[in-house]
Amino acid sequence: MSLKRKKISVIGGGFTGATTAFLLAQKELGDVVLVDIPQMENPTKGKALDMLQAGPVQGFDANVTGTANYEDTKDSDIVVITAGIARKPGMSRDDLVQTNQKIMKSVAREIVNYSPDCFILVLTNPVDAMTYTVFQESGFPKNRVIGQSGVLDTARFRTFIAQELNLSVKDITGFVLGGHGDDMVPLVRYSYAGGIPLETLLPKDRLEEIVERTRKGGGEIVNLLGNGSAYYAPAASLVEMCEAISKDQRRVLPSIAYLEGEYGYEGIYLGVPTILGANGIEKVIELELSEDEKNALDKSAESVRSVMAVLA
Amino acid sequence: MSLKRKKISVIGGGFTGATTAFLLAQKELGDVVLVDIPQMENPTKGKALDMLQAGPVQGFDANVTGTANYEDTKDSDIVVITAGIARKPGMSRDDLVQTNQKIMKSVAREIVNYSPDCFILVLTNPVDAMTYTVFQESGFPKNRVIGQSGVLDTARFRTFIAQELNLSVKDITGFVLGGHGDDMVPLVRYSYAGGIPLETLLPKDRLEEIVERTRKGGGEIVNLLGNGSAYYAPAASLVEMCEAISKDQRRVLPSIAYLEGEYGYEGIYLGVPTILGANGIEKVIELELSEDEKNALDKSAESVRSVMAVLA
Amino acid sequence: MSLKRKKISVIGGGFTGATTAFLLAQKELGDVVLVDIPQMENPTKGKALDMLQAGPVQGFDANVTGTANYEDTKDSDIVVITAGIARKPGMSRDDLVQTNQKIMKSVAREIVNYSPDCFILVLTNPVDAMTYTVFQESGFPKNRVIGQSGVLDTARFRTFIAQELNLSVKDITGFVLGGHGDDMVPLVRYSYAGGIPLETLLPKDRLEEIVERTRKGGGEIVNLLGNGSAYYAPAASLVEMCEAISKDQRRVLPSIAYLEGEYGYEGIYLGVPTILGANGIEKVIELELSEDEKNALDKSAESVRSVMAVLA
Amino acid sequence: MSLKRKKISVIGGGFTGATTAFLLAQKELGDVVLVDIPQMENPTKGKALDMLQAGPVQGFDANVTGTANYEDTKDSDIVVITAGIARKPGMSRDDLVQTNQKIMKSVAREIVNYSPDCFILVLTNPVDAMTYTVFQESGFPKNRVIGQSGVLDTARFRTFIAQELNLSVKDITGFVLGGHGDDMVPLVRYSYAGGIPLETLLPKDRLEEIVERTRKGGGEIVNLLGNGSAYYAPAASLVEMCEAISKDQRRVLPSIAYLEGEYGYEGIYLGVPTILGANGIEKVIELELSEDEKNALDKSAESVRSVMAVLA
Repeated sequence: MSLKRKKISVIGGGFTGATTAFLLAQKELGDVVLVDIPQMENPTKGKALDMLQAGPVQGFDANVTGTANYEDTKDSDIVVITAGIARKPGMSRDDLVQTNQKIMKSVAREIVNYSPDCFILVLTNPVDAMTYTVFQESGFPKNRVIGQSGVLDTARFRTFIAQELNLSVKDITGFVLGGHGDDMVPLVRYSYAGGIPLETLLPKDRLEEIVERTRKGGGEIVNLLGNGSAYYAPAASLVEMCEAISKDQRRVLPSIAYLEGEYGYEGIYLGVPTILGANGIEKVIELELSEDEKNALDKSAESVRSVMAVLA
Repeated sequence: MSLKRKKISVIGGGFTGATTAFLLAQKELGDVVLVDIPQMENPTKGKALDMLQAGPVQGFDANVTGTANYEDTKDSDIVVITAGIARKPGMSRDDLVQTNQKIMKSVAREIVNYSPDCFILVLTNPVDAMTYTVFQESGFPKNRVIGQSGVLDTARFRTFIAQELNLSVKDITGFVLGGHGDDMVPLVRYSYAGGIPLETLLPKDRLEEIVERTRKGGGEIVNLLGNGSAYYAPAASLVEMCEAISKDQRRVLPSIAYLEGEYGYEGIYLGVPTILGANGIEKVIELELSEDEKNALDKSAESVRSVMAVLA
Repeated sequence: MSLKRKKISVIGGGFTGATTAFLLAQKELGDVVLVDIPQMENPTKGKALDMLQAGPVQGFDANVTGTANYEDTKDSDIVVITAGIARKPGMSRDDLVQTNQKIMKSVAREIVNYSPDCFILVLTNPVDAMTYTVFQESGFPKNRVIGQSGVLDTARFRTFIAQELNLSVKDITGFVLGGHGDDMVPLVRYSYAGGIPLETLLPKDRLEEIVERTRKGGGEIVNLLGNGSAYYAPAASLVEMCEAISKDQRRVLPSIAYLEGEYGYEGIYLGVPTILGANGIEKVIELELSEDEKNALDKSAESVRSVMAVLA
Repeated sequence: MSLKRKKISVIGGGFTGATTAFLLAQKELGDVVLVDIPQMENPTKGKALDMLQAGPVQGFDANVTGTANYEDTKDSDIVVITAGIARKPGMSRDDLVQTNQKIMKSVAREIVNYSPDCFILVLTNPVDAMTYTVFQESGFPKNRVIGQSGVLDTARFRTFIAQELNLSVKDITGFVLGGHGDDMVPLVRYSYAGGIPLETLLPKDRLEEIVERTRKGGGEIVNLLGNGSAYYAPAASLVEMCEAISKDQRRVLPSIAYLEGEYGYEGIYLGVPTILGANGIEKVIELELSEDEKNALDKSAESVRSVMAVLA
């Protein structure tokens, strides 16, 4: 008997992928393999080596390897996909979708080939459609292909609320359904400070402003950075989901999950509350929604379907 | 009475500065202010906001602020300087030194103005001369102006040894004196795996190869990245020094310290073993050196003096 | 300038006091002084030395000292009181109250003498009356004298709910008002799993059983142990309050706070939601209560007053 | 595929066993089962429940169960044995040995029955002979039956040195061979502060005093406590060994290992430097010893053999 260390691969060695790899290593969740395309092999190796050299100082034991060879991901327990292109000026949405779809398909084939039993977490945008693509291409059961958006959206919401109320982020909880960003369906009535409903602590219009800022939270950072997009909070969000699965924590976290009837949807990946544990998505939690909430979620689902329609 | 949170400012919002800010916030060592030049104000705000949004997920309570206004650093307990330019192709060493010297002077004046009681940690290269410049310009006592190089150099050495022996980085210790990189004086006889001298575990020539790789450790990563230099391990090293001071841990860590007679040197900043605690450098530890070691340290000191000669 | 380490004293070296000291040291919240009566001086020194010796293994730097001399607590930032006797068979409640009152008075005088600016946390039972006694005897402002009961009660409630739903404890929140144990006023409508109200996840009668089990949670452990009472969860609860104050986290935590009009009560210590930060109790949060809840809180307040009436 | 949580059982629910269980849960190394004899079933359940209730506050997800039924330990990855009696006044050493031997045999049979693939860590005294007993009775390969003494002895040594030099425990390393306590063979020349040999930092006679105090470190605490023996540092030591194995850290730690020729001994369990990883004891590290050191180790081995001679 041997207590083999877990192995987590991160596809895409850009800022988000690299930061994800680093945070995984810090937590000693397993050995980490950071994968990028052959042209980026050396920079990816450089980043991996740099973070490895932080190990003695931060006190973590985890191999971190940079590679352009998927063979190095063999027998991963979890694979995180951050690869893909960002929308460039002049690029149509459909071009973006189809380009990233091709990348997802190619990545999915490699993953399946080398780690047929792994869990896959997808971050690449548009995340609902890309998670669906990976699900289709991999042939994995739905509990093992999961998208990230809600953990990040609620993290932003919680940050803004904590600032507004001048309280610890530890005591602010938030709740969203549906797609990422503009399509986010915040359930403010399920959001609290120390258990106290936010609706009793903040005026309605101020709450709406914060919800709106959260919806545009990714764009706010893109605008500030001028070049590139957020990566600290997205990476932290992926790592929280990895930890929940890898330690079988049975966390209640929002995931992009494949729905087969839940909330009235069929054959679509959508952001819903889930239980994440040793089997990936252990369960989709169904809530009773108000009419307004259901309408907003319908709109979010339609938006996802309209992207799916573009898939080749 | 109030138990005010500590405040740490990081000057320079590039990769190293930003990563330092993030690792400081993660450890809840205090509130963090990330400062860059006015042209970089928005990107710096963007990075700060992004890492703040990782707080709810990673569970840390620390304000992280991006700014181009030194007033925001007011009453910092510790200030970390990562600002400065990197040497560009065609730039002479003297140009580099004098450009960064100007930056250090300007930064030091701002720091002194707003945080006259703080501790200053310097990372900017060439780090010995730059720490000296900050010391001179600030008028601070020597225990409060400290340079970083040895923690990083030993981290790299420890990483390579841990890989070579396939052992936990937690049990590998290393020891260096003198300048950063090429001028590093490794005391291999003071380096161990689980307390066992490395000289008894590895052949002499293999050890020398690893020492040589460590000396060129920064360059190895520069070459791999193709564009830019290491930042994870440098940031982790700065944070370890901050933590030692801010928690009064009395760690034994290599620092670039101002020498007034120690090791036979006078009026020079050089890498030596120190005790870091609530008063910054609490003590320089003097070791008996072999003739070879002393010669190597002399050479390192000469190299520092040759750079100091270029200072305006 | 010096970044002096914080100092926290724990009065009472029994299981709860010792465990509190250990958990404080583990978190490096400061140096810890564990105080007991002269007859217990040696065992207290023994426990302190034992936990100090765990430091190199667990990686914490914190002095832990055992003593019977209050002079060693000089200039503490926070003092935690766990001292006092437990009710023995045949002892009337009034005898218990008056004996512990005497102990509180004597302890308070020592604390004030050596640490006039500290924050005081009280655990000794009956905790509302004992916190009041310390408040009176110390002459400290109300924000600096705080009792613990709600953090523990909610921890128990959260544990039972997590078990019932087979979910991570990280995602379960609970909410109580009023006194400890039997007098606990649980606000189940403010208690959630992943933000989802428990009332929608569990049948009403099952929830009531869990509330009832929580109320009697201390007794359940007393009965199981046969000899003595709980100390792990009580110690963890005290440490969370210490951390909130010492790191100025502005946590939303239930505290036993002195009320001057809040919730309609005057001149009484009672369990209410508070903000804990650098100034101790930064604020008492007032919630609108239903009639049932207000009645239960009134009953709890009466119960506290009936104990206060016994105070000498 | 499922990422099942690890399971660690702790036999013996006294102070050391309970503290070990708590520290294991804190680190989320797996679910923890605390086992004691039927007469102690309820107290053991009480302790387990109490520590479980600390989970929501300290933020750990780990089931902690108290039981008197070995069936509950089924499929443990690691089993830690702390069970056994302490020597009472008037009891001969031989009586102690034979009583604990009986306990070890019975415990080993239960472990083998329910967890035939586990690793076993033994703390019960006299630990060398008791580890041997468990090895014999279990029929396990030698890499899976390991005794603890050196991690604790070095922890004490490091604590005393850190106090003497007023330095961080993080930077003090120590090194011992041989048996526990009086039989400890300290290799002071392999002990350092920040990599600097202690022999150059402290006078020889002061070092000898500290070595002597370390040898009698367990007795010092027994004397102070008056009733019972140390448990914080012993528990922390066991947990460090569990963590090294369970996370495959390949730590260099002193273990009581079965020797088949190493250091010239055959068929004996003795304290030696080892590599601990996913296969338990991955390797015994052999050092060249000075004549004095070898003589001391011989004496320690003889002492172990004299205890083994008493085994029934």
